[in-house]
Parts: sequence; C-alpha cells; structure tokens
Amino acid sequence: MVEHAFPEAWMARALTLARRGLYTTDPNPRVGCVLVKDHRVVGEGWHERAGEPHAEIHALRAAGEQARGATAYVTLEPCSHHGRTGPCALALVEAGVARVMVAMQDPDPRVAGRGIAMLHEAGIEVAVGMLEDEALALNAGFVMRMSHGRPFVRLKMAMSLDGRTAMRSGESQWITGPQARREVQRLRARSSAILTGVESIIFDNARLTVRPEQLDLPEGEALAARQPLRVVVDSRLRLPLAAACLREPGRTLVVTLDDHEPERRETLQAAGAEVVALPAGTDGRVDLDALLRHLAEVELANEVLLETGATLAGAMLEAGLIDEMQLFVAPTLLGGEARPLFELPGLSLMAQQKGLEILDIRAVGDDWRITARPRRLTQVST
Amino acid sequence: MVEHAFPEAWMARALTLARRGLYTTDPNPRVGCVLVKDHRVVGEGWHERAGEPHAEIHALRAAGEQARGATAYVTLEPCSHHGRTGPCALALVEAGVARVMVAMQDPDPRVAGRGIAMLHEAGIEVAVGMLEDEALALNAGFVMRMSHGRPFVRLKMAMSLDGRTAMRSGESQWITGPQARREVQRLRARSSAILTGVESIIFDNARLTVRPEQLDLPEGEALAARQPLRVVVDSRLRLPLAAACLREPGRTLVVTLDDHEPERRETLQAAGAEVVALPAGTDGRVDLDALLRHLAEVELANEVLLETGATLAGAMLEAGLIDEMQLFVAPTLLGGEARPLFELPGLSLMAQQKGLEILDIRAVGDDWRITARPRRLTQVST
Repeated sequence: MVEHAFPEAWMARALTLARRGLYTTDPNPRVGCVLVKDHRVVGEGWHERAGEPHAEIHALRAAGEQARGATAYVTLEPCSHHGRTGPCALALVEAGVARVMVAMQDPDPRVAGRGIAMLHEAGIEVAVGMLEDEALALNAGFVMRMSHGRPFVRLKMAMSLDGRTAMRSGESQWITGPQARREVQRLRARSSAILTGVESIIFDNARLTVRPEQLDLPEGEALAARQPLRVVVDSRLRLPLAAACLREPGRTLVVTLDDHEPERRETLQAAGAEVVALPAGTDGRVDLDALLRHLAEVELANEVLLETGATLAGAMLEAGLIDEMQLFVAPTLLGGEARPLFELPGLSLMAQQKGLEILDIRAVGDDWRITARPRRLTQVST
Repeated sequence: MVEHAFPEAWMARALTLARRGLYTTDPNPRVGCVLVKDHRVVGEGWHERAGEPHAEIHALRAAGEQARGATAYVTLEPCSHHGRTGPCALALVEAGVARVMVAMQDPDPRVAGRGIAMLHEAGIEVAVGMLEDEALALNAGFVMRMSHGRPFVRLKMAMSLDGRTAMRSGESQWITGPQARREVQRLRARSSAILTGVESIIFDNARLTVRPEQLDLPEGEALAARQPLRVVVDSRLRLPLAAACLREPGRTLVVTLDDHEPERRETLQAAGAEVVALPAGTDGRVDLDALLRHLAEVELANEVLLETGATLAGAMLEAGLIDEMQLFVAPTLLGGEARPLFELPGLSLMAQQKGLEILDIRAVGDDWRITARPRRLTQVST
C-alpha cells in the first residue's frame, strides 16, 4: 500500500501550498492539496481567497482524469457543505480518488468530521493526523475562532534590551531597524484585525496599515488591497478626529462602552470611524473577552495582532487572552525612566510572575525576534 | 619552511592549554605554549598559578633535548625579566628553539617587545599576531590593566524578559534557573574581584562567593580556595555589620569617601571588612574611575565582575566603564512595577539611547544568555 517511503513529504508539499494563502484567505483557513499517483504529483492546488474554489477543487481540476485512483493529501478535512463549488468531499469521491490523507479535522462546526464520514461512506480510505501540529499552527486563528469563539491573539512589541518600548515622552521611532519593521508589516498583512488602545493612537498617531512598499513581497500591492480591520479600544471616546488611521484605506472600528455619548459617537462616525458599544468589565473598562468574542462572531477575525502600550498589553496578559508574543528586541538600552513592556499592577511577588515559553529566538537585521507564549500555569524556578 | 599546512592549529592548541589557567593564574595572564618539531608536539605547558613557572618553562622541561630546532607557539610574548625561573625568552634561546610564533605582544611595560627583541638578537625567527584576537580575548582583563590602568569590567545581570531584576520589594530569588546560576559562579571564579553597591548587600545579603558545589567543575574545591575580592561601594558606610559577606572566606573591601567617620570605619574593620577611602566624583559619590584604578594598581585586579542594582550599573554605564555585559534572561515577566536593569537618569530622548553590540545569544537551561558590549558611540537606527 505504501506508495512513498515518506508520505509526509507530500503532506509537507500540501502545507507549503497552503502557506501561499497566508495573506489572502481571510476569513477562511489556508489549505493546500496534492494529488499523488504512481509516486508523482498529478495535481495540486491551494485556497487563494474567500469566494474562490477550495484547494481540492484546484487540484482535481489540474489532475483531470489522472485523479482516478490517486491519493489526496489535504491539510484540512475536505468540506461537507455546499459552498460555491459543492462539498469538496463529494468532489473527491466523484473524481474517483482512492485514498485521502488529512492533516487535521476541520474545527468548523458545519464540517467537524462530516467530510471524513462522507469519504468513508463512499468506500475511500481516510487517515487523519499526518503533520497535524504544522497544520494547526498554520491556521491557529481559524481553529481558535471555530473552537473557542475568539480569535488567536498575537502580541507584537518593539523593545530595547532593557524591556522598554518608548521614552517617557512617548518617543519611540525607531527602536528597531527596517528588517524588524518589515516583519511587523507582514504580521499585519496576515492578520484579520489590528487591536490597539486609544492611548497608542494619541501618542503615536499610528496608521496601523499594511504598506505595500514595506512588505518586501512580490505581490505587495495586491496584498495591501485587503487592509486588516483597525480596532481601537476607547472606553471614553477620546479618539482624535484628526487621527491618521481614520483617513487610511480600510475600516477603523472604535470599541467603547455602552452608548452614553451619542453625539461624540456620531462625530466619530462622520470622521470615518465605525463605533460599537460593548459592556464594561469588572474594572469599568471595555470587557476584553467580550471584545474578542465580538471580533470573532461579527468580524470573523481569525488572527488579531495586538500592537499597543503597556496598559492594554498588561490587561490582555492578565486576562489570559494573549496566545503568542513576538518581541522585536533592539540592541540598545533606554533606561529605567522609559516605558515598560507590560503594566501588571497586581504583581508584587516572585510567585506571581508570568512564566513564558520561548519558542524561537532569531536575528532580524541588527535586532532579535523572540517568539514566546504565556505558560498556562505560573511556573516558579526551583 | 612550512612545517604544517595549518600552523594556526598549533596556536589553537596553545590557547586551549592557556585556558586551563582560566580560574587560577590571577593576577597573571593565562598563557599556553606548544613546542612542535617534525610535525608533532614535543612538549607543551601552561601557566598554572602566580609564583609557579611560566608556560614556556613547562613546555621546555617536557621537551628536554627535543626542543632543539623546534618551533614554539606561545599565546603571549615570552617574558624578558628575571622572575623565579629567569626570562622565558632566554630559556627558549638556551634550549635551541629555532622559531617562535607569538599570538600577541605582552602589554606588561616590563616586557612590551623586549622578549621578542631578545629572541631576534639571538637569531631566532619570530612572528607575532597569529590568533591575536583570541589571545587578547582570553586575557582581556590583564591587557586592560596593563594598557589602561584599570580592570576589564564585566556586568552580570539576571533579568526577566521585560527587563526586570527583582520585584519592587527587592525579592529576586530566583529569576533564573540553576544552569544560569552555575554560569554566574564560573564568572565569579575567573574574576579578580566582584563589585557591588551597598544597597545590593542590604537588600539581598549577597555572599558574593564562589561555591565549589555550584561550579560543577572537577577541581571545584581547589578553585574555591581563591575567593575573588569582594568590593562594596558604600559612600556613607551603611554596610550592616551582620552582612553575610563579612563572614565568608576571602576579603571584603568597603570603598567609601574620604575618611570622615573613623569610628564606623573601625567598627566595620573589627567586623572583618577592609576599608579604603577614595575621593568623591562630581556627583558626590565614590569616583568610579578612581575606584577601578585603585583595584588595578593596588589589588592587581584584571577582571571585575559587576553584580549590582540599577543605580550603580547605570552609573558605570554612563561613565563608560562597562566593557562587557552578560545578561541572563529568564522566560518570565515581572511587570512595570518591578526593578529596572539600569537607572539612566539623564536619558530622555531616543537620540541618547545606549547602543549595544550583541556578541552572542545562547540557551542556558531554560534561560538565555546574551553577551553584549556598549557601542563606543551612540548609534541611532535609521
């Protein structure tokens, strides 16, 4: 039955194809498909953009009659529901595919095993789980939204080696170098939304846009056509009407508390903002968990990039709502008066420290990128 | 004339031998010597300890008659002055060595080229500069003392990823794990002196000793017999008489301002401290440059390990007196209320940032060690 000494190599190819949709499939997942017959690829494809065919359909079209008897390597369970091109599981059956290797089950409740069952029922051999971790990582946002009803939150910060993000005055341009800023542009381009606090807008007048010339990708102009949703947490509607982000392409969503300032709200809307009111949390500010649920349910946000200051970053960390951190560390010192990374007001004992797991450290130009995630339980060194 | 395709390999061997003296030669430099004849080693040696023979003498003794016509690879210029075993340059001449490869000239003003001249005059071929950078790095402290009249200062800090060294209360045990603490023990063991501020003693009651069981080296017990000098900057003689460091093996030197409290000084001396008074700097505190000159001239200190808090660390950095930093970074966050790495009170603009050059980042257990050095000119990213 084995048609290749390392069938994982075909799935790895399918994942590579899936990654081509990194910047474009939102809010859909990134999916790749390879059809293999007699030890060679007879068709491959990937999902490019919501509203366009799924990866399997592209691969089947490329294979034509050669799909009959082939093995399909798919990075996500084929869908079982009728979209524009019909259920992909059915298309595989109809094309006469002999076997389907699936990296991971689709967490979308509309699918959730039904695609696999559809294949099984047609007598097709199905195996699930090959390179599953890689497949999960590629769609961490989609999986989080489908499984937990909130987006995957990635915090990005540019910091000095002594853990500072800006001078006391707020001056911060630039701590890191152009390569690090290019990486940040790419993080924005893959995200559904960018989340910030109104203070960051007031201090930096950040535009929070994807700038094609800074992406350094061949298809930069096309990618920048889809701007991530800009989300500004602004409990007291302090967003300046002159804020640069209100005049950029794409949408700016101002999240405030239950509507008690209708006039200011209307003024902001006239200036280009959309305003949504959410309930307050126990601290009297916008409830962050409710905010993320709103972004998942209403905006279909998979990946949210958190680009903000120490107060909102600390509150998100305290609330357990940060899934990944990308810290761009510049080889410089800003001193003890400069602005901190996280305000964690309740933290006064070593036993309360916020343990992290460091996943990766690598050079980015003259800076270093540290990828980490919070440990779910506070760990104390012994 | 070439006796080996890669003569640097013999010098590298000599450097490896020299490193065996890493923890023991103080205040002398670490030196290794290899005698090579007919493509093989006929004798080798290293300087083990002040008062014992130099590397060349050990190598010549091992080689015996085979030294005649051999090439000597020495990591430091052979000495020209009469110590316990006579000038090494003369010993090489008398043994009939044909050629001497020297990694670096001796910066000791008593030698400073005279050893090389002595060899030249005897008709021996001499070349200087092979693996010179490695030789300089191995004896950065000795070279600094001989060339600039002050020790090489290495700052060590244990910090969280957000640049914090302790909670606001001072609690800091332990930010980093056992492997990082072992590395710190080894940094102590290679240093002539450990420099700290009195606040660090008051808050941590640090012993500042080399603990053989934590060194994790085969000869740990023997190494701990030489305790680095403990130096406490204490302008107002606040060192507690109960300080643990006063009851440890080795010397504790309290550095204060010109003697205006003779009684307190006598009390401290009775408790085991040595006290030295130095002039005040422009800020009214102990002049740090004068302190380092004192440590070089009176204590013959080559390498000083700075283990202290943000105030003294910041003052040393501002004064341009830190040559290397070893930052042990734990994967944890302590928050904006916790203690900073450096107090740099004059620093309020990005243009004043303290640029660093990162030399190395590597994992040490669950922590990361960043080795860096200050840039001599402030660099601003463009």
